[in-house]
Amino acid sequence: MYAAGGLAGIPAAGAVGTVPAASAVAQAAHAWTPPSGSDFHLAGRRGGKKVVIVGAGPAGLTSAYELQKAGYDVTVLEARHRPGGRTLTIRGGDSETDLDGVTQTARFGDGIYLNAGAGRIAQWMTTMDYIRELGVPYEVFTNANADAYLYNERTGSTPGNPTRYRTAKADVFGYTSELLNYATDQGALDARLTADDKANLKTFLRSWGSLDTSGAYTGGSNRGYASYPTAWEEHGTPLPGPDSLSAVLASRFGNYFPFETNWEQAMLMFQPKGGMDTTWQYMVKAIGKQRVEFNAPVTGVQNTPKGVTVTYEQKGRTKQVEADFAIVAAPAQLMRGWATNWGGAIDTALADFAIGSAAGKIGLEYQSRWWEDDHRIFGGITETDLDLAHIWYPSYGYGERTGLVVGYYNTGASARTYAALSPKDREARAVEQGVKIHGERYRSELRSSFSISWDKVPYIQGAWAYPRTGTANFALLQQGVGNTFFAGDWMSELSAWQHGAIWSARYAVQALHAKAAAL
Amino acid sequence: MYAAGGLAGIPAAGAVGTVPAASAVAQAAHAWTPPSGSDFHLAGRRGGKKVVIVGAGPAGLTSAYELQKAGYDVTVLEARHRPGGRTLTIRGGDSETDLDGVTQTARFGDGIYLNAGAGRIAQWMTTMDYIRELGVPYEVFTNANADAYLYNERTGSTPGNPTRYRTAKADVFGYTSELLNYATDQGALDARLTADDKANLKTFLRSWGSLDTSGAYTGGSNRGYASYPTAWEEHGTPLPGPDSLSAVLASRFGNYFPFETNWEQAMLMFQPKGGMDTTWQYMVKAIGKQRVEFNAPVTGVQNTPKGVTVTYEQKGRTKQVEADFAIVAAPAQLMRGWATNWGGAIDTALADFAIGSAAGKIGLEYQSRWWEDDHRIFGGITETDLDLAHIWYPSYGYGERTGLVVGYYNTGASARTYAALSPKDREARAVEQGVKIHGERYRSELRSSFSISWDKVPYIQGAWAYPRTGTANFALLQQGVGNTFFAGDWMSELSAWQHGAIWSARYAVQALHAKAAAL
Repeated sequence: MYAAGGLAGIPAAGAVGTVPAASAVAQAAHAWTPPSGSDFHLAGRRGGKKVVIVGAGPAGLTSAYELQKAGYDVTVLEARHRPGGRTLTIRGGDSETDLDGVTQTARFGDGIYLNAGAGRIAQWMTTMDYIRELGVPYEVFTNANADAYLYNERTGSTPGNPTRYRTAKADVFGYTSELLNYATDQGALDARLTADDKANLKTFLRSWGSLDTSGAYTGGSNRGYASYPTAWEEHGTPLPGPDSLSAVLASRFGNYFPFETNWEQAMLMFQPKGGMDTTWQYMVKAIGKQRVEFNAPVTGVQNTPKGVTVTYEQKGRTKQVEADFAIVAAPAQLMRGWATNWGGAIDTALADFAIGSAAGKIGLEYQSRWWEDDHRIFGGITETDLDLAHIWYPSYGYGERTGLVVGYYNTGASARTYAALSPKDREARAVEQGVKIHGERYRSELRSSFSISWDKVPYIQGAWAYPRTGTANFALLQQGVGNTFFAGDWMSELSAWQHGAIWSARYAVQALHAKAAAL
Repeated sequence: MYAAGGLAGIPAAGAVGTVPAASAVAQAAHAWTPPSGSDFHLAGRRGGKKVVIVGAGPAGLTSAYELQKAGYDVTVLEARHRPGGRTLTIRGGDSETDLDGVTQTARFGDGIYLNAGAGRIAQWMTTMDYIRELGVPYEVFTNANADAYLYNERTGSTPGNPTRYRTAKADVFGYTSELLNYATDQGALDARLTADDKANLKTFLRSWGSLDTSGAYTGGSNRGYASYPTAWEEHGTPLPGPDSLSAVLASRFGNYFPFETNWEQAMLMFQPKGGMDTTWQYMVKAIGKQRVEFNAPVTGVQNTPKGVTVTYEQKGRTKQVEADFAIVAAPAQLMRGWATNWGGAIDTALADFAIGSAAGKIGLEYQSRWWEDDHRIFGGITETDLDLAHIWYPSYGYGERTGLVVGYYNTGASARTYAALSPKDREARAVEQGVKIHGERYRSELRSSFSISWDKVPYIQGAWAYPRTGTANFALLQQGVGNTFFAGDWMSELSAWQHGAIWSARYAVQALHAKAAAL
């Protein structure tokens, strides 16, 4: 039984797997009240029920952390040598061997790191709450920068011409405002707009589009300058342009802008100081290091009359652990290779989530911060139609002597192209293209690199699964099987986000607790 | 004489006061090469010419710093008790007495500060170069946040309804995209657009405005949620709305958006860690503390046959210092009260810049970070049509227990309204209005406050003067008078910015050096 009134958003006991009412969830999203020790006490038990959690990524660790707060005895088994899962921060000395047997060891200097997986947190995400609860210091993640570049080789009147975001925005917003202002003046919107609407619209457009008194867009300060105004009578050197309306539309730069207003991506965003995995290192400490076993890959999970038996490998030996419950927070494709007695329906359901997508990143360590010195880009992301897709400038270490740029962050076919290359060849390909945008220092200042291909990382084998939350198979997995429950970002509304992993853990913990309380 | 080829952007000797060629300035804006000691040496002198600089704000300190690097013997006289001028950071224990005799002493806790004046730096600004050169640590200043509010009492169908930026943007961009898409489909733009243009435009609008397949805007995720999606099948609770096209236009929220694409204000922006005046504290240290005299208000600057004589007060005594040159980096209205022999034309020219505008800020220190906890706003600015104008959430101290919000930052009539009140009444008025947006915790969590009215600060007496850089009077001031030169943000293209003050100093230093070299 639940203690009355305490647990926002928890389905009634016995109704695990049903959809909580929207109002309860609305509350839960803002104030998480996990199962607490007193629930056990009120139910006449002393707590201490044992739970094995498989996986020390965000979903597994959150499960262990919340269950432990509620008085459960938790053990986490992690196949890899470190916590965090795809929240992976690579620092100098870190070593990873991929499924092909290729080993890379990062040679980064002190304080330099690559967030090889999860890289950003929106301020509304629950990840922020754990960061705060654990006392992790954090700072702004620079997801958008007016001075970063847009670079399209395949479109536009001047393909391959790096253009600052601010310039592209001024031109796109300028011309589209001009067009809408023109259409309004021509009476084309008379059926849609009152006189007041028109006046309000025109006021907005004039300002938003920097239109002149005739309603035309002709450029202006917001495009930026070749040389900015200084003092005395130096009004600055304008950039060439703007290009024609047709050319600006043909550049397709505007198609990059919606990213900045996207609900998951809009600034401000944040990152833990020192690397994204810091959160999960803190959480391991909070749970107790002795409760988290590394290099302990699970090979079987069996439901038993008394609970669960989990089989794993450690130091060349096969071990087993008995527990009252298990939460399995591992990639679905891995689970399908284990010895389980979950039955065919669960295996079929897992197959729905067993397709890990391809994604890759490379960290390029530089001996200078040329992007700050030469380009005056302090953080942010350059967008391209090259196969490197995105280039991230670092959101940390401003003003230091050295730094690290994410030279590609790509998915799908582009990711597979790079995955097929050796680390050295990935570096060469990334640099070859980055030079087109940034010039030769992109090559000459390079000190070292480290690249990841997520489908080649042992025990992870993919970047993310796409959620199929409306399906019968999903509903089956929500219920778990016997005393075993499932968690992971792929069981959330936000696959590939720590927020999703955390919430999937919260739901799994609630379902487990409901079952424990009803025992 | 100048050393050949070294000094980008410097007018030829003897032509001080003429306009440097745009190309030279374009170069200078990216790579500042100040006068150097070797210039003196090449000219057959040993350096050591003495310069008195009046004012330890950004213009004065930059002048002293650059001249000292070039081998000059510098003394800075500052009327106030601290460096930085309007780059003023108020920390716990700091005390200020205004021109009315009202003293405030900040009771802020450790690590809490108010940047009472200069508050942000665009990444292209030269301020960044000095921060880096001096080794000042810095961090992102959060000039824009999708989760900050817009609040208009005087307009809209639902006046006084706080709306998140992200919601307002989704609605304004949604409806304006719908209108332009509609006008395009109606053929209203056939005279302006080719078929390719139309296709490119419609692709952009569909994405930018989140239009549905019929071309209509009906809301969507980018508006944000009452409760965000979590896991299992919880798709989140949408916000009510969107309101009608007419209501969205009538809200006039869109008129706040151009700020984010403005050339001076577009993100990313930065601030020194620990307070904006840190830069100038570092610069005082670089110049040598013994060379900067505080509490030393100047009362006269006289050109003499040998150079200049500067008269000032210190510890109740009138003192004089002789020097070869002076750079006066003080507010123009102050200079007009001094004993000078600059002549009537200079006095008339100074009068053009002697109108200090009104501006005020209040720092509200809170015992919790309710804006982060309750509103999930981590930094950024809320815009209003109230007389408090802007509310700034702090860009530092994330996740700490306490923090400081700028409760108003206003100018003109609104600033004068607050200036006329006692500090306690300013606080009461600011809180009264902030409560409308944030609820009662805006009042109940308040711990202390500190407010500033720039026109009441001794020896400053105004927020900023508007530049009139095209005038004959401005040209006169550029030339200086005798061996005296002028500097200050008001002598730049960017009044009210540290960048402007710095560049005015660079020009003054160049003019002085040209004259010294020609002696």
